[in-house]
Amino acid sequence: METKFEDYWEEIRNEIISDLPSYKIPKEGIDYIEKCINYNIPGGKMNRGKSVLVSLQTILNRDLTEDETKKANILGWAIEWLQALFLVSDDLMDASITRRGHECWYRKEEVGLIAVNDTLILESCIYKLLKKYFRNEKYYIDLVELFHEVSYKTELGQLIDLITAPQNKVNLEKFSMDKYIWIVRYKTAFYSFYLPVALAMTMAGVSNEKSLKVAEDVLIPLGEYFQVQDDYLDCYGDPKVIGKIGTDIQDNKCSWLVNQVLKICTPEQKQILAENYGQDDPVKIQRVKDLYKELKIEELYKQYEEESYKNISDMISKVDPNVINPDVFTKFMNRIYKRTK
Amino acid sequence: METKFEDYWEEIRNEIISDLPSYKIPKEGIDYIEKCINYNIPGGKMNRGKSVLVSLQTILNRDLTEDETKKANILGWAIEWLQALFLVSDDLMDASITRRGHECWYRKEEVGLIAVNDTLILESCIYKLLKKYFRNEKYYIDLVELFHEVSYKTELGQLIDLITAPQNKVNLEKFSMDKYIWIVRYKTAFYSFYLPVALAMTMAGVSNEKSLKVAEDVLIPLGEYFQVQDDYLDCYGDPKVIGKIGTDIQDNKCSWLVNQVLKICTPEQKQILAENYGQDDPVKIQRVKDLYKELKIEELYKQYEEESYKNISDMISKVDPNVINPDVFTKFMNRIYKRTK
Repeated sequence: METKFEDYWEEIRNEIISDLPSYKIPKEGIDYIEKCINYNIPGGKMNRGKSVLVSLQTILNRDLTEDETKKANILGWAIEWLQALFLVSDDLMDASITRRGHECWYRKEEVGLIAVNDTLILESCIYKLLKKYFRNEKYYIDLVELFHEVSYKTELGQLIDLITAPQNKVNLEKFSMDKYIWIVRYKTAFYSFYLPVALAMTMAGVSNEKSLKVAEDVLIPLGEYFQVQDDYLDCYGDPKVIGKIGTDIQDNKCSWLVNQVLKICTPEQKQILAENYGQDDPVKIQRVKDLYKELKIEELYKQYEEESYKNISDMISKVDPNVINPDVFTKFMNRIYKRTK
Repeated sequence: METKFEDYWEEIRNEIISDLPSYKIPKEGIDYIEKCINYNIPGGKMNRGKSVLVSLQTILNRDLTEDETKKANILGWAIEWLQALFLVSDDLMDASITRRGHECWYRKEEVGLIAVNDTLILESCIYKLLKKYFRNEKYYIDLVELFHEVSYKTELGQLIDLITAPQNKVNLEKFSMDKYIWIVRYKTAFYSFYLPVALAMTMAGVSNEKSLKVAEDVLIPLGEYFQVQDDYLDCYGDPKVIGKIGTDIQDNKCSWLVNQVLKICTPEQKQILAENYGQDDPVKIQRVKDLYKELKIEELYKQYEEESYKNISDMISKVDPNVINPDVFTKFMNRIYKRTK
């Protein structure tokens, strides 16, 4: 029977927890960290984590050994771990209430601002895992550098998002489609789309400046499309299907929809937007939605989707199979386009 | 003329700032990060940073080349950088007001909780600096691993400190001298005392499991003494000399003094402590100080100081000069013992 991605979780968690007594850390510290890890790392959709293995299989184009399967899945969990620490810190900064159907970690009575230090601990665990499982591989430092570089990019994306769209302080002058695209690429696309493939390429021994650039050139626009789609679904998705009721409008989010409005609206329409965006009032939210309708934003999204699909397919068709198997990208794209959740 | 530690600051800062345009990050992001770095990294006593060079000179026991001097000072700045990010996050978690004579970073109007992401950005910068200056050295991965490992230890120390002595919730049952010592070693001693020497040893090519263990065995108790002294000075130091008025008693700090009291007090004295510790009331603070006097805590500190000096001198005298020049440790010790600030 095949070992699934989820089956590696126990081992990885134990790797971190069972190492703590070697630090002679007081018992309550071990309990706290165990709780923090169990609460925050599992429970996502795990698409990012699972795609390392799929990418490696596609690149090598053969059955993987048990060791390769395990290593790819451990790198996948390291991405889930990275995502988790960003979510813990995002929720704290955004004053969010729930995450993945549970109360946000920082809102638990025994946590609060200790969550700041928890994000640092969670981050450190990633490098402990890389050291444990990859120390003897010649590509070890490349993995470490990939995590460093992608973390930095994600943090830069987060910074610009935070200073562009602060909660409770609407200033549409700060928004622009260019800035939106930049934020999406840095805050989401690098760690969600580029990182899994770049890690698999590194394991497969096919990563170099040129091949990584090819991967980036395809995967970052794909990640951009994914986030635009997320913004679309926040407003137009079926809450029963996506599992949440969107709140981007009242939360003053710098979303694709509002930036699309700003790109084409008249001064009068901009005034309406300024008066109604970023406020938790059903009438004002509806006024923004009406404006979206007047400006046919949904149709513009469909156009964007078609164009984006065409552009990325084009790029993939031009990828030199001697550099990297283009199927890696096709598989990614097919999982994402026209999703409803 | 010799280049001083401080003289490398401009270059190091520019290394980070001038790299930002390559990410096409919006201008306001560059301005924000530049301000964050200028505000938080320089301005400390820089003892930690400066001691990498001193240690390297002592280990190699010869004049250093220009390149060696530069590299040692860059590692020193990386320690200052690490310290800075911990201070930013500590101040946020402790709700501190001032740091190094200025308002704490997170309290600035444009910052607030964005400081959580700033700590992550500052941490990422350390690895960017290591990559820039050490990528081609065979000991590059050892430097990276040292920073990872020491960061993790510091974060564990911080966690136990936070759950042992939360502000506004005095529970002396959580305190103990053993736990105090553990916190001090992890939260302070590893990054302040062990790290500078371990980095210098790595550069000098004399670091291995055995020699690093020797360094740790001497430097961690030295760091412990340093922090005990800090706790002592908080209560008994001259505010004009140490540059601040101590607030450990009202802040419910898990300090050496209060743990010493708990070790020797009667149940009645413990009751007095429980009723007066951790509250911002001059009468109660004085009552705690009176208790310190009744129990001769100051004298016990002097005893501790003598014993600690003797123990560490003993350990240094037993260090095999073929493993590492013991003067590295003697110089450290002489800088610290019987300091008044």
